[in-house]
Amino acid sequence: MPFPVGRIAYRATASGIVVEVPMEMTEQIFGMGMNLNVVNNSGTRKTMRVSDNPNDTGETHAPVPFYVSSRGYGVLADTARYVSFYSGNLAPVDDVQPDSQTAAPGTTTEQLYRSRGVVSARMVISVPAAQGLDLYVFAGPSALQAVERYNLFSGGGTLPPLWGLGVWYRGHSQFAAQDALQLAEGLCQSRMPVTVFGLEPGWQSHSYSCSYVWSKERWPDPDGFLKKMDALGFKVNLWEHAFVHPTSPIHDAIKPYSGDYRVWEGLVPDFSLPGARNVFGRLQEALVDQGVSGFKLDECDNQPVAARPWSFPEFSRFPSGMDGEQMHSLFGTLYQQTLYDIFRRKNLRTYNSVRSAYALASPLPFVLYSDHYLHKDFVRAILTSGFVGVLWSPEVRHAQSVEELYRRVQTVVFSPQALVNGWYITRPPWWQIDRAKNNAGEPMPNYREVEAVCRDLFELRMSLIPYLYSAFAQYRETGKPPFRALVLDYPDDPMTFRLEDEYMMGDSLLVAPLFAEDKGTRKVYLPRGTWYDFWTGDRYDGGRRHDVAMGPTRIPVFVKDGALVPLAKPVISLGPNTQFELTVKVFGSGNQRFRLYEDDGITFDFEKGLQNVIELTWTPQGGRISKLKGAYQGPSRYAVAVWESPANRR
Amino acid sequence: MPFPVGRIAYRATASGIVVEVPMEMTEQIFGMGMNLNVVNNSGTRKTMRVSDNPNDTGETHAPVPFYVSSRGYGVLADTARYVSFYSGNLAPVDDVQPDSQTAAPGTTTEQLYRSRGVVSARMVISVPAAQGLDLYVFAGPSALQAVERYNLFSGGGTLPPLWGLGVWYRGHSQFAAQDALQLAEGLCQSRMPVTVFGLEPGWQSHSYSCSYVWSKERWPDPDGFLKKMDALGFKVNLWEHAFVHPTSPIHDAIKPYSGDYRVWEGLVPDFSLPGARNVFGRLQEALVDQGVSGFKLDECDNQPVAARPWSFPEFSRFPSGMDGEQMHSLFGTLYQQTLYDIFRRKNLRTYNSVRSAYALASPLPFVLYSDHYLHKDFVRAILTSGFVGVLWSPEVRHAQSVEELYRRVQTVVFSPQALVNGWYITRPPWWQIDRAKNNAGEPMPNYREVEAVCRDLFELRMSLIPYLYSAFAQYRETGKPPFRALVLDYPDDPMTFRLEDEYMMGDSLLVAPLFAEDKGTRKVYLPRGTWYDFWTGDRYDGGRRHDVAMGPTRIPVFVKDGALVPLAKPVISLGPNTQFELTVKVFGSGNQRFRLYEDDGITFDFEKGLQNVIELTWTPQGGRISKLKGAYQGPSRYAVAVWESPANRR
Repeated sequence: MPFPVGRIAYRATASGIVVEVPMEMTEQIFGMGMNLNVVNNSGTRKTMRVSDNPNDTGETHAPVPFYVSSRGYGVLADTARYVSFYSGNLAPVDDVQPDSQTAAPGTTTEQLYRSRGVVSARMVISVPAAQGLDLYVFAGPSALQAVERYNLFSGGGTLPPLWGLGVWYRGHSQFAAQDALQLAEGLCQSRMPVTVFGLEPGWQSHSYSCSYVWSKERWPDPDGFLKKMDALGFKVNLWEHAFVHPTSPIHDAIKPYSGDYRVWEGLVPDFSLPGARNVFGRLQEALVDQGVSGFKLDECDNQPVAARPWSFPEFSRFPSGMDGEQMHSLFGTLYQQTLYDIFRRKNLRTYNSVRSAYALASPLPFVLYSDHYLHKDFVRAILTSGFVGVLWSPEVRHAQSVEELYRRVQTVVFSPQALVNGWYITRPPWWQIDRAKNNAGEPMPNYREVEAVCRDLFELRMSLIPYLYSAFAQYRETGKPPFRALVLDYPDDPMTFRLEDEYMMGDSLLVAPLFAEDKGTRKVYLPRGTWYDFWTGDRYDGGRRHDVAMGPTRIPVFVKDGALVPLAKPVISLGPNTQFELTVKVFGSGNQRFRLYEDDGITFDFEKGLQNVIELTWTPQGGRISKLKGAYQGPSRYAVAVWESPANRR
Repeated sequence: MPFPVGRIAYRATASGIVVEVPMEMTEQIFGMGMNLNVVNNSGTRKTMRVSDNPNDTGETHAPVPFYVSSRGYGVLADTARYVSFYSGNLAPVDDVQPDSQTAAPGTTTEQLYRSRGVVSARMVISVPAAQGLDLYVFAGPSALQAVERYNLFSGGGTLPPLWGLGVWYRGHSQFAAQDALQLAEGLCQSRMPVTVFGLEPGWQSHSYSCSYVWSKERWPDPDGFLKKMDALGFKVNLWEHAFVHPTSPIHDAIKPYSGDYRVWEGLVPDFSLPGARNVFGRLQEALVDQGVSGFKLDECDNQPVAARPWSFPEFSRFPSGMDGEQMHSLFGTLYQQTLYDIFRRKNLRTYNSVRSAYALASPLPFVLYSDHYLHKDFVRAILTSGFVGVLWSPEVRHAQSVEELYRRVQTVVFSPQALVNGWYITRPPWWQIDRAKNNAGEPMPNYREVEAVCRDLFELRMSLIPYLYSAFAQYRETGKPPFRALVLDYPDDPMTFRLEDEYMMGDSLLVAPLFAEDKGTRKVYLPRGTWYDFWTGDRYDGGRRHDVAMGPTRIPVFVKDGALVPLAKPVISLGPNTQFELTVKVFGSGNQRFRLYEDDGITFDFEKGLQNVIELTWTPQGGRISKLKGAYQGPSRYAVAVWESPANRR
C-alpha cells in the first residue's frame, strides 16, 4: 500500500457516511463503474447509479463502486446504496489551492465554470442513507494487481463455454419461428460462422412485461424449432426481463416474493430470496431442458433521473427488507445469479447478455450491453469494464455507411462477445445497413461483397478463439481482465492516463479500433518496447504515437515484442469435439511461450481439475507444443499446423 | 377540499418518508418548481433539486416542493431535503391497470419504453433522508385560490419599486467604468427608456470567487461613477455571488460562519446564521449607502448531476447544523433574505436578480434567470413560475436573426423583468445581434431601424407600468400571481391543461408570444368568452383556437371582454415624481373598472397604509378616475388623458 490504511478517515452524518481516502495531487483514478463516456476519473464526481442512460456522471449499466489508482491500489465501497466518489475535486476550507485565474473575468460560462481538476489531495466517498460502510482496500503494488485481487476476491473471472466466444446473431423482435429459421438457414448458406442465435421478445406469449412462455402463434412447436436450430449448429439464446406479467404461469406464485410496485404491469421479484429464485427459475429451467443455451436479461437497470421512469421507485419495499435503491444496485447481479444457478445445477456452462451488473460480478457469465450506440462510447466501455470486473459487448446493429459497419464489426471481433443484434431489422446488416431499407426488403447493390468482408472478419474471430479462451482461463485463475485499458499494463507511462481508444486483448494484442469518421487513419500510441503490426509483422518503436493508415477491411492491431499468437483455422461452428488447427505466429525474437487452456469447453468439470495447460514454446531452433499439466482426458483441442516466424514470413 | 385530508397516508422508512395523496385518474398536476421544460406534470416523476441545468426531471433554479391540482388544492412538502413527486405514474402491486399494448412487441425503444401516463390514482411523495415531514394542504375551491393562499401563507407577493418594472440593461463582464458610462450615455442618446444598468463581475477586484470590493483598475472612482449614472437616470445593480474569496475584507470574519468546503476558492456562508448575515452584508450595505439599488445573486444554485460540479457537496457541514443538501435547497432564498434585510432596514425597496429560490419565496423582490437560452423554455418558465410563488426573467442576450431579437424583446416586455443582458457583448444587441461581430465592433447595416423597433417595444413596456404595478400590488395583497398559466384562470377548460406558450399578465391580458421559427403565425387558444386584439381591438370568439398572424414588430396579445387597460405615455426614466399620463383603453362594453395602485414607489411606507387605490370606471356615459381609499399623500401618480372606447377607436 502506498499509504497506511489508518489514514483513511470517516464520519457518520444524519443522512449517511462520508469517507476520506488520502490521494496525491498527481494520482490518476480509474474504475467507478463501467463508463461509456470517460476513462480517467481524476477531478470528477461520479454517483454510482444503475441506469439505461450511460453518461459521465456515473449512470451506467454497471455502476460498480470500486476504483483503482495509478499508485497501485483499489478501493471497494461495499454497499448497495448510491455511492458518490469525489476524486480530488473538493476543496476543504483549510486546504485551498491558489487559482491560476487571471484578473479579467471570463465571458463564457465555459470559462467561468471550467473544471479546476484535482484541487485537493483526497478522495471523498459519500454514501447517503447508509448507517455504516465496509470499505475494502486492495493493495498492488501495481494497479493491475489490485484489479486482479479484486476479481479474485469476487471469485475469479468467468470462463465462458467455447461456443460463447463465437459469433452471435439476434433476430428481429417480431420474428415467428419460420422467420428465425429462414434467417438462420441463410447464415449457414452464406457460411457465416455464427454459433449463437438469439430470439427477441416475440418468442413470448406476452412481453413488456413477460410471460416466459412460448407464443402459440409465433412459436407453435418450440421443440421442433430448437431441434432444427441445433442441427444447423446454433445455440439458442432467449430474451427476457424480470417483470412477471399477470398472464405468466408463475405470476401468482411469485407475488409473495415481489416488491410493492409493478413495472409495465409486471411483478418485480426479490431475487435475494431463495423462494423467489426457485419460483422464477421454474420456467427457465424447463427452457434449458428443452435445449436453450442462455438468456438475455433486459431492463434490469433503471432510469434514476428520467421524467417518466419505467422502473420501480427507490422507496419500493421488497420482502427481504431491501428497499428499491438497494434492489436497483443489486437487481441485475441477483437476476444473473438466479439464472446462472440453473446452469450450474446442470453442470452446463452458459454465456449470456445482461443490462446491469454491480460489485463482485466477475464470476458471472454475463456480458453487458446498451441501447446506446455511439461507436467511440462502445470502445471506451471495453476499457472501463476491465477496471471493475465486468464484460462488455459493443454490439453491431445498423450503420450509416458500409465502412461504419466494417469498423463496428471489427470492434466486435476484438471484444468479449461478438454480437450482431438484428432486433429491429429483418435481414442481416451486411445485406442492408439502413434500418428502413432493410425492413423494406431492399438489399444494398454490393451486399455480396459486404457480406464477404464481414465473413472474413467473423472468421478472424473464430481464429482468435484459442487465444481468447486462454485469456479467459487466465481471468478465472488470476483475475487478469482479458480486455483492459493500457494504463493497467503500463501504469508508469503518463501517456496511457488519458487514452480512451486503445486496449489490450489478452497478454499481447494491442487493439486500436478505427471509426468511420477517421477515414482510415488514426494516431496509435504504443507504449515502451517494440511492437509489430498484427497483419504485416512490420516493426514499430514503442514510447510514441504513430500515424496508422488501414483500409476499411482491417483494424489496427499491434503485437507485443516476444509474443506467440496462436490463430486457428476458422471453423463454422463450435461443438464439444472441435479441434483447432493452429498457425502460431511468432513476433520478435528470443525464447517465447504461450499457454493454451484446454478443457471440455462446456461443463464445470474443470473445477475438479479436468483441464490442461498446453504450452507453446518457440526458440531459434523452432516451435514445440507440450502438455504442461492437467487431468482433462477428452478430445485434444489444439494441433499446430504451422509455426510462422519472422524468418519464414519473409 | 375535494377529499378528506385524513386520506393522506404516510410511512417512515429506514431512509426517509413516503407520503401518498389520493388523486383521480383525470387529475392534472402543476407546479413542483419553476420548470422550463414542461408545464403539466401528470404522469411524471420530478425530483426537486436546485440546479443550473433546468430540465424535465425537476432540476431547476426554483425547485419549490409545492404543487397545485386542477381539482383545486395545493400541497407543500415543507422540507429542505430533495423531494420526489410521482404524479400518478407508479403502479402498486394490487392496483394494476390493464395495458393497451398489442401482442406484437415494439421494435423501437420509444415504443417499448413509452410512458403509460397516469397508471394509478395517487400522488406519491418521497423525501429521502427526512425523519419527518410537515405537509401543508391549501384548499381552493379553485386552483388559483390554492395558489393565492400559498402565496399569502408565504407572506404575500413582492411589490417591486416602480423603477424595477422599467427596462434593464447589463453591461459586458470586462467593462471598466468608462466603458459602462459610454454605453449608458449611448442608451440615453438613443432615447432607450432604460431604468436600471447592471454591472457584471468585472466591477470587483476579484471574482470567481468574490471580493465584493470595487476593482481599483477598472473602477477607480466608484462614487463618481454612481453619481454620473444617477444623473443619467440609471439605477445601478451589481453582480455578485456568495462565495467569499480570500482577498475579500470579510473573508476571515465570515470563516467561522461558513461551510467546510470552498467553492471556487471561496468560503460558503451559512446565511441561516445572523452572524453570517451581519458579516456578509457589511460590504453590500456600504454599497447601498453609496447608491447601489440592488444586486444580481449568481450561482446560488448547484449542479446536482454534473461530472465536474462547481458547488459544495450535499454532505457539507454548516455551522447551523444544516448539511449541504439542505443548504442547497435554501441557499438562494437565505441569500436573498440577507440582502433584502439591508434594504428593509433602510426603508428602501429594491428589485434584483437571483439564480435560485425555494419555498415561500413570494415576498422576496428577486427575479430568477438562467444561463439557458431557448426562447420557448423561457416562455414556459413564465407560466410555471406562477404556480410556485416566484418570478422569472426571460432575458434577451444575443439572437440568430433580427426577428428572433424582436420576438425575444417582446417576451421580455411582457414579463416580470424587462432585461437585456449584454454580459458578453460590448454593444447592445440591436446594434449587432451576433455575438462575435458585436465584440468585433461590426454593426448590422440596418441597426438604426432595429434600434427603433426595440425602442418602440421598450416604450410599450413603459406604457404598461401602471397596469403591471397594479398587478403586483394585487400579488402582494391577494397572492394572485401577476404572470400565470391559463389553467389557473380556466381550470374547467381541458384545452388549457397542456398549453405551454400562452399566459395571463395581470387580470385581463392574454399573451401568446411568437417565436422566430414560427415565421409570424401561430395558433392561439382563447378560452370561453369574447376576446379583443390588443393592437387593433378586433373581436375574437373564445373557446377555440385561432390562426394568428403578426408582423415581426408586434406580439399577439388579447384582452378579456370587459377590461379597462390603462396605458401610460412612455417616460424615459422612473423617479419618485413620475406621473403617468394614461390612455385608458376600453375593451368590450358594459360597466367596467380597473383598480390602479398608488404609493411613493420606493419605500415600504405602504405597509403603514401610505397607499391609495385609484379606481378607473367606465360606463356607457364615459370614464371616471377616483381615489377609493388610502393615506398616500405624495405626488399623484396617474392622470387620464384619453378614454379610448370601441366607439371613439372606430
